[in-house]
Amino acid sequence: MYKLASKSVAERSIVRVGSAAFGDGGFVMIAGPCAVEGRAQIASTAEFVERCGAQMLRGGAYKPRTSPYAFQGLGEEGVGMIARASAQSGLPAVVEALAESQLSVLCEHVAMIQIGARNMQNFALLRAAARTHKPILLKRSASATLDELLYAAEYVLLEGNPNIVLCERGVRGFDPQTRNLFDIGGALRLKELTHLPVIADPSHATGRRTLVEPLVLAAAAAGLDGAIVEVHPDPGAALSDAEQSLDFAGFERLMSRLDAMVRPQFSLAACR
Amino acid sequence: MYKLASKSVAERSIVRVGSAAFGDGGFVMIAGPCAVEGRAQIASTAEFVERCGAQMLRGGAYKPRTSPYAFQGLGEEGVGMIARASAQSGLPAVVEALAESQLSVLCEHVAMIQIGARNMQNFALLRAAARTHKPILLKRSASATLDELLYAAEYVLLEGNPNIVLCERGVRGFDPQTRNLFDIGGALRLKELTHLPVIADPSHATGRRTLVEPLVLAAAAAGLDGAIVEVHPDPGAALSDAEQSLDFAGFERLMSRLDAMVRPQFSLAACR
Amino acid sequence: MYKLASKSVAERSIVRVGSAAFGDGGFVMIAGPCAVEGRAQIASTAEFVERCGAQMLRGGAYKPRTSPYAFQGLGEEGVGMIARASAQSGLPAVVEALAESQLSVLCEHVAMIQIGARNMQNFALLRAAARTHKPILLKRSASATLDELLYAAEYVLLEGNPNIVLCERGVRGFDPQTRNLFDIGGALRLKELTHLPVIADPSHATGRRTLVEPLVLAAAAAGLDGAIVEVHPDPGAALSDAEQSLDFAGFERLMSRLDAMVRPQFSLAACR
Amino acid sequence: MYKLASKSVAERSIVRVGSAAFGDGGFVMIAGPCAVEGRAQIASTAEFVERCGAQMLRGGAYKPRTSPYAFQGLGEEGVGMIARASAQSGLPAVVEALAESQLSVLCEHVAMIQIGARNMQNFALLRAAARTHKPILLKRSASATLDELLYAAEYVLLEGNPNIVLCERGVRGFDPQTRNLFDIGGALRLKELTHLPVIADPSHATGRRTLVEPLVLAAAAAGLDGAIVEVHPDPGAALSDAEQSLDFAGFERLMSRLDAMVRPQFSLAACR
Repeated sequence: MYKLASKSVAERSIVRVGSAAFGDGGFVMIAGPCAVEGRAQIASTAEFVERCGAQMLRGGAYKPRTSPYAFQGLGEEGVGMIARASAQSGLPAVVEALAESQLSVLCEHVAMIQIGARNMQNFALLRAAARTHKPILLKRSASATLDELLYAAEYVLLEGNPNIVLCERGVRGFDPQTRNLFDIGGALRLKELTHLPVIADPSHATGRRTLVEPLVLAAAAAGLDGAIVEVHPDPGAALSDAEQSLDFAGFERLMSRLDAMVRPQFSLAACR
Repeated sequence: MYKLASKSVAERSIVRVGSAAFGDGGFVMIAGPCAVEGRAQIASTAEFVERCGAQMLRGGAYKPRTSPYAFQGLGEEGVGMIARASAQSGLPAVVEALAESQLSVLCEHVAMIQIGARNMQNFALLRAAARTHKPILLKRSASATLDELLYAAEYVLLEGNPNIVLCERGVRGFDPQTRNLFDIGGALRLKELTHLPVIADPSHATGRRTLVEPLVLAAAAAGLDGAIVEVHPDPGAALSDAEQSLDFAGFERLMSRLDAMVRPQFSLAACR
Repeated sequence: MYKLASKSVAERSIVRVGSAAFGDGGFVMIAGPCAVEGRAQIASTAEFVERCGAQMLRGGAYKPRTSPYAFQGLGEEGVGMIARASAQSGLPAVVEALAESQLSVLCEHVAMIQIGARNMQNFALLRAAARTHKPILLKRSASATLDELLYAAEYVLLEGNPNIVLCERGVRGFDPQTRNLFDIGGALRLKELTHLPVIADPSHATGRRTLVEPLVLAAAAAGLDGAIVEVHPDPGAALSDAEQSLDFAGFERLMSRLDAMVRPQFSLAACR
Repeated sequence: MYKLASKSVAERSIVRVGSAAFGDGGFVMIAGPCAVEGRAQIASTAEFVERCGAQMLRGGAYKPRTSPYAFQGLGEEGVGMIARASAQSGLPAVVEALAESQLSVLCEHVAMIQIGARNMQNFALLRAAARTHKPILLKRSASATLDELLYAAEYVLLEGNPNIVLCERGVRGFDPQTRNLFDIGGALRLKELTHLPVIADPSHATGRRTLVEPLVLAAAAAGLDGAIVEVHPDPGAALSDAEQSLDFAGFERLMSRLDAMVRPQFSLAACR
């Protein structure tokens, strides 16, 4: 059985990335484009989501694409662009690593390293990422049980890196009406099994822009620790994940509704 | 393609059962035991959940049990008991029908007829239940696509019965940590496809008492039309579904949190 | 736990339907159209599949259709047609029952009653069908565990009807490349858990004509007790399941390959 | 869409690894322990499976284990041991790579490199493995669609390495009766979509020793290009996958039955 990831170690862990704190009872919003596509795109998005209240910036530089013919990301150049947008907006950034060779550049330029769903059991990468001592955003693979996800976290913890945030991003479902099946029950059960913070990724979980807002509200109401959502200045022109990205107006509305809901929620949480 | 169930017919339908209204922007709570086990049990539960703000009463008389050796319900006697509890508490009751032969008794005594997940495609039963002209609570089967659920609703609508409430109660998942996988994304997508109200059943969806409250809050925050939850005076002694039933204290806490959350939510909904 | 369906009762049961024997080490082929569409269609199919070596005839009269707008079968008239084709060809027929009200007609005219996947947990129908004392072909529902299927069989056995043949017809999968996911491993595991015969339905399991022959051969090689396949004189004109029905030439080829393979297989089976 | 993996390029490819030829109409058996555990274990297994007619040897040196506390393989030392057993038995060996850093050692010592299910979309590893120009055994991940598997193959093909064998090893199922759900229908559909050879791994697909033989026979009867099975001198003492490994007697029986079945099958295949 996993040990370091279990509740026997602690009731809850708080993972801090810059001024964002996962697991302290608040709800952290991470926002940004699926992929960094250019200097202006990531800079304007960072500035906008910061203004709306997001606490972290996301944006892929190395993209794990099912098809080798799809846009693969801007690579190191993209890392530089999101690093600059992060500095200008003051939002710490999270960027996915696909290979050990990308870790040193990421370490130098971003605040948090993401291990994506496809690499959840790429144990060599997990160990190497852990050893950077950067906080890790670890996504659940599309067919991982909760135990398998916690064992993957255990690989990171065993390297001496305690800063892991888990992310539910949808499991493989049977109905093409949604891209994946958002397992909110599993995410909540996870919080009973581990002290690590757990956030939601409704963009990848559903693949539908219109479902992102209600699922972020659901995640907050249910007591998850945050959400990561895709925001793009012009979703129709996005090089990847166009159907699931919010535009600026959509993100602004989401944040104002979240804000209205979370305030009384906080007071409820206090009385638990 | 289904026609009468689609948005082309109406933007939204309101289904009224006594004073409860599904689909009017509010959040209807249905509560009660998995099965009617005795006069005192159902009466005390009805009285308690009514006091906490529930708008409808649930309780099985004919139980669809995987095993023929499990408690099969009190049958017609159980219908009489829940009818009396319904009358005393003022809460309209919903009871599941497993066979056409049970419909006349149910019609006489209860306000709403449930077609369970196992019978979602029992088309003979669907048609016969529809022809009673009672409101129908139609549960999604564990492996039904949204289209299949809407086609099942279409069978009811074609009999001239427009009063259908759909219910997401979890789809078959691969992780035994939860009994089923609560497809909140699918439930929300459903509301984009149909005008019919959609509610959540977190008790059956997760099989875990501790996950019921956060998932009801999630369903309300996301904009679903209600929830149906299992409540028992003494869950440890329940003849079925002991692990997922709330006790009275748990239900009271859920209702107070829901109440705290729904009020500002309502004002948000109003401005949509 | 189920009792009467378990190996503790017997190592294997043989279920006889006319001259066909399921579970005696041989491989029984059931063939015919998805639905009876007319006198000539069912008569010519019966005659042809009999000539190729099929031991039973299939054909739906009451069709469980996802959509109420799809062809629902010829009903009682269809039962009469398949009964006549059965008599003329000498092949005992199996026809699905969707409702208790259809059982008396079926009992009078056909040799075996099918309970389809959608009704696997329609316990009222299971019990009523069992009490006809006709042999029952019980299909696994698309999301049933093996235990759930065996419990459904237990409902039949408890009514005093020992003549049950189980059928794997595909579980719900996530890849639309096949209509369902043919669980051959589950079907084989079933034979370790129960004494009841187990057959395969590769037509519904895959929804693809081209995969029927290799899967029948696979089922025979693996030691299942038979297969049920859809055959139509003119699949392109079929009123249902056109994509998965074999034409006569395809069925003839399948039977000759099966014949070539099963002969040495038989001698192997003998030495087990 | 994938291009190089599609049928538009070729009707079928033959992949040769030593004297074994995948895709030429024959059925290639790969056998050996889950993990190399010691010199004697791998040597005796290699000698035995060769004597029974296996054409390739398998054995893990770097093991991808869900738990960090489980046996992780003998690493480079294990590679040396299987290389020696391969030389002595004359069977070419396939060993899994978990990281780019392992590729040079593997290239030097083994005939074929396996990319496991967990790394099917580890695109950095896929590309690096492709560039070794060794034949690649690419396993389908537990929740990959056939398209996703073929896109993963496309990553390899685009590096100029045409020698890929695909392997179905079970998808994530919902019934714990089998470890995974062996998707034989998907494997057969794959052969309609691509020219690449497709083999079966019934050991991982089912996790049950007793189901390995019937599923190998099924795979051969259905026309797949081979199978990879786990064989251990003393399965009860195996450091991993004890429940699904055949012992020597079990493998010998499997091979004699396969032999009896494949011979007439071959003549059938010839007349296609």
